[in-house]
Amino acid sequence: MKIREERLNPVLENLKRGGPAIILPKDIGQIIAYTNIGKESICVEAGTGSAFLTVSLANICKKVYTYEKDERFVKFAKENIKRSLLNNIEIKQRDVIEKGFDEKNADLVVLDMPNAKKAVLYARKVLKKGRFLVGYLTNIEQVKDFVKECENEQFQNTFTLETIQREYLVKDKGTRPVHKGLMHTAYLVFAKK
Amino acid sequence: MKIREERLNPVLENLKRGGPAIILPKDIGQIIAYTNIGKESICVEAGTGSAFLTVSLANICKKVYTYEKDERFVKFAKENIKRSLLNNIEIKQRDVIEKGFDEKNADLVVLDMPNAKKAVLYARKVLKKGRFLVGYLTNIEQVKDFVKECENEQFQNTFTLETIQREYLVKDKGTRPVHKGLMHTAYLVFAKK
Amino acid sequence: MKIREERLNPVLENLKRGGPAIILPKDIGQIIAYTNIGKESICVEAGTGSAFLTVSLANICKKVYTYEKDERFVKFAKENIKRSLLNNIEIKQRDVIEKGFDEKNADLVVLDMPNAKKAVLYARKVLKKGRFLVGYLTNIEQVKDFVKECENEQFQNTFTLETIQREYLVKDKGTRPVHKGLMHTAYLVFAKK
Amino acid sequence: MKIREERLNPVLENLKRGGPAIILPKDIGQIIAYTNIGKESICVEAGTGSAFLTVSLANICKKVYTYEKDERFVKFAKENIKRSLLNNIEIKQRDVIEKGFDEKNADLVVLDMPNAKKAVLYARKVLKKGRFLVGYLTNIEQVKDFVKECENEQFQNTFTLETIQREYLVKDKGTRPVHKGLMHTAYLVFAKK
Repeated sequence: MKIREERLNPVLENLKRGGPAIILPKDIGQIIAYTNIGKESICVEAGTGSAFLTVSLANICKKVYTYEKDERFVKFAKENIKRSLLNNIEIKQRDVIEKGFDEKNADLVVLDMPNAKKAVLYARKVLKKGRFLVGYLTNIEQVKDFVKECENEQFQNTFTLETIQREYLVKDKGTRPVHKGLMHTAYLVFAKK
Repeated sequence: MKIREERLNPVLENLKRGGPAIILPKDIGQIIAYTNIGKESICVEAGTGSAFLTVSLANICKKVYTYEKDERFVKFAKENIKRSLLNNIEIKQRDVIEKGFDEKNADLVVLDMPNAKKAVLYARKVLKKGRFLVGYLTNIEQVKDFVKECENEQFQNTFTLETIQREYLVKDKGTRPVHKGLMHTAYLVFAKK
Repeated sequence: MKIREERLNPVLENLKRGGPAIILPKDIGQIIAYTNIGKESICVEAGTGSAFLTVSLANICKKVYTYEKDERFVKFAKENIKRSLLNNIEIKQRDVIEKGFDEKNADLVVLDMPNAKKAVLYARKVLKKGRFLVGYLTNIEQVKDFVKECENEQFQNTFTLETIQREYLVKDKGTRPVHKGLMHTAYLVFAKK
Repeated sequence: MKIREERLNPVLENLKRGGPAIILPKDIGQIIAYTNIGKESICVEAGTGSAFLTVSLANICKKVYTYEKDERFVKFAKENIKRSLLNNIEIKQRDVIEKGFDEKNADLVVLDMPNAKKAVLYARKVLKKGRFLVGYLTNIEQVKDFVKECENEQFQNTFTLETIQREYLVKDKGTRPVHKGLMHTAYLVFAKK
């Protein structure tokens, strides 16, 4: 059952589990498809967590800068970055709500952290014009706060998506969705600078 | 309403509509996230259609080879490839069911065409070991045929996903999913060589 | 398309459309199935609106008392009640937020009205112990307010459901969900006295 | 978690579990809402299974006749019918595919059994004109066979629905759908005589 809920692509299969909650391919795919990042893109992310999104972005983009304030998570993420065999990830231990980001001209900023709304103004400074900030947000209340903050910070095109995914059993004796599975992971808010 | 159902990322916004049915970001994202393609990947696709997936893959990957048998669609796709400003796409007018593909060692093959099952054996020849074939299939009957053909052709890890996406209105006066939208586009079958 | 989104059972097919938004069978079914009303039940409802739920409840229950404050809607509802040929419905023009309900020992109270939370205390007075209040609520904000008010009023078992329904095309040439349809109608909050 | 997936109304709460798979309120509600049964209706059902649908229908309708071929299930169902305290249910041990039904002029026939398609012709004989046959079917293949058989037997209005239900956590600290739950129970085919 677990495998069905969280099918992972080959790069992610090698990563360690058991740390902070991971972002699953279902949501990683939406982030990539709606923001249009590609092989020339610079991505900035906070927080790193288990580094599943970090590694997925690094597999596609030129460079990923990722921020994590919790020392234990940094350690966990470093192990996973090592396992990914990718060498275009830079991880920094920092609380971005206090100190912001170092980068400029980023093509994507993703925030997956408590109080993500408080990092929106820093995200704005980092982003190139026309590029996206994405909030990965568990609750509707966080979505509301985040959208409002994006509007305050003059992001121009804000939309919110949720994705429900079902796996099918395809057998000679009968084809149907699997009975149990993930009903909800998070809402994704996209805001264009 | 149309915009809500089919939000497009910046590269796709410039493409022409009105040709064959397009693959939307919701499904493009799943293809990218579950197959693990990246900036070093070679992708092969049939059929090209309106080239929305073609352009999305080319934005991420090293090279995309795309096959389309219908002359009018080839013309339409060429216009869109030109508009994308990407120069790593090669389009060939051919019915792959009759003549197969020219490439070797591809990292991904996507089939979005009538009778996709008849191209599975050619897809197998093109793919590197450990890489994915994806079928974009409208009907359950096509899914069953495709899965069976993948098993016949010794693909080892076959799974089928469908994605339902909802956009939310986030307003001071109330937050809720939009009332009407897309309930279904296609099923995605993933098969690993 | 319209018919598909709003398939109606035979009693409802005869009712007039074009008045206030109707409650659809998808949600009517949930209200009936989770609250356990039956042929001996007394139901109380506000507001009546187009009387689609009113008529559905009356078809099953002993008696339905329904309240509507808007004079035009009362007129519209009366026409539909007449068309239903059911004679166990009593409609009253009243703003229940100001004056509450007349009944006692009801087996179900359904609130489908602006500011439904302000009628929760009246609903509590009307209900038998162990029976359900249901809020039909469009927005998450209304859900939150309603749930909080139910807890304030000592309802003991409160839960919130949403139902997504898809119709399938089943044809020789292919079986699949219809492409477009209703993504959202309302959230249902159930609270047991 | 179990309770969340299968919230039951008060009548059903008293029934025994651990027998054949039950039909849940989510689907019971759809059957009631789309077929328009009420307090004057005669319902016929096969097979009885754990009698959850049987009891739900009996709570609403005048009389329910239910058929079950498996002796052990009959015993299990009788215990549950007793627990429901309803006295308008008649259960018969019989394989309806071999011998059909005894009733005439039914307002609803529900088939929840292997090879339901083979009982469609008997269902037709039992039903009043203008009333519904409902198939509760786990797999798409069963849906296709059932729909085709209904068309062969001259049912005039056939449609197929699936219902996805989500429960929400509504808390001060955040509102969101529960993470895990039921993704699929069954498809419902409705056919009007």
